[in-house]
Amino acid sequence: MRISALSSVTGIPIATIKYYLREGLLPPGRATAATQAEYDETHIARLRLVRALVEVGNLPLASVHGVLAALDEESLADAVRTAHQAISPVPRSTGRGRAEAGPRRAVALLTSLGWTFNPASHSLRRLDQALAGLEAAGLSTDPEVLTRYAEAALTLARQEVAGIPGGPAGDGSEVGGGAEDAVRYVVLGTVLYEPVLLALRRLAQSAVYLEARSGQP
Amino acid sequence: MRISALSSVTGIPIATIKYYLREGLLPPGRATAATQAEYDETHIARLRLVRALVEVGNLPLASVHGVLAALDEESLADAVRTAHQAISPVPRSTGRGRAEAGPRRAVALLTSLGWTFNPASHSLRRLDQALAGLEAAGLSTDPEVLTRYAEAALTLARQEVAGIPGGPAGDGSEVGGGAEDAVRYVVLGTVLYEPVLLALRRLAQSAVYLEARSGQP
Repeated sequence: MRISALSSVTGIPIATIKYYLREGLLPPGRATAATQAEYDETHIARLRLVRALVEVGNLPLASVHGVLAALDEESLADAVRTAHQAISPVPRSTGRGRAEAGPRRAVALLTSLGWTFNPASHSLRRLDQALAGLEAAGLSTDPEVLTRYAEAALTLARQEVAGIPGGPAGDGSEVGGGAEDAVRYVVLGTVLYEPVLLALRRLAQSAVYLEARSGQP
Repeated sequence: MRISALSSVTGIPIATIKYYLREGLLPPGRATAATQAEYDETHIARLRLVRALVEVGNLPLASVHGVLAALDEESLADAVRTAHQAISPVPRSTGRGRAEAGPRRAVALLTSLGWTFNPASHSLRRLDQALAGLEAAGLSTDPEVLTRYAEAALTLARQEVAGIPGGPAGDGSEVGGGAEDAVRYVVLGTVLYEPVLLALRRLAQSAVYLEARSGQP
């Protein structure tokens, strides 16, 4: 199909498609004339993925490139790990020597929880900074309080990972259409359910608060 | 104490304190000379709150002002609501008439959950946009899947709201030191535990994935 049809099918303006082409987020179509190219189903799928990452996930272009690079990894496990790392914001440097000291708070918490983790994970350093933030603000970093959050996260994660196409339940040794599906699922699931979870938490707080108050005389 | 002592006690550079003073985030000290002022415990507390909101919560200055304004509300319930709204990012306009159509997806979900909600809440519109994002990306908006997230959020919220100082468990009718505590708790708890929850969710996914794979032959 021509670029105009690609635009109609996906609902993405031609100017946006051309921008994605220039940025290398969408592979070029098959040239059929000096100023024309043919696009196919793979372009539709890729466009939907890129749009979801950019518009809904609010990922910066560098992260989108990282996610797309994950589709080229040799094994499914590597693809998922690369995608996960690409969408995890690099922790800010605190300028206070915390990075040098290592994410000791996060490591201590995960160790006490018995979770397996990658010591180089961006998320581990994000968690450490978040815990440092709680400490600095005088909020509880009581293991009992944190365990509630960890349990909620683990319950969701078990359900989420169980649904990964070709994921741990499969043999995970080869990349095919399956890897693209798995990466898509992991990335979109992680990025797109985050705002759902955060919004629901705030709404749940309001609901509990409103209900408790209206229940008073 | 002088500004230099305030800086030593809080670990916040003098230049940053002066910036907060200029921006109206910190009330001026009591002038003792043309170029000197005295600061007290209230300044220490305010500085710690502002720093936590700016540096850890990554809140824009406008939101920080909104949170501080909440401390002036007449009732505790209003203070909590104002603070909550101030820290909830205003949903982006989608330019697709969604705002006009109302957050129907979010309203439908909360109604099916039986939650009490404020129809003008920013979080309601954020949730609606997040659900629209899932739909656009072809991810599940199956009520059964969403209910898992809602249940996780509600479990956390019940524990969180139960801990609000002077919150629904109290009479909530007057503002005193209690309102400041409640606002501080709600805002910091909401903002500062969000990165903890998100980081833990990603780490939990990795843990489940790594454990499932290492358990394979």
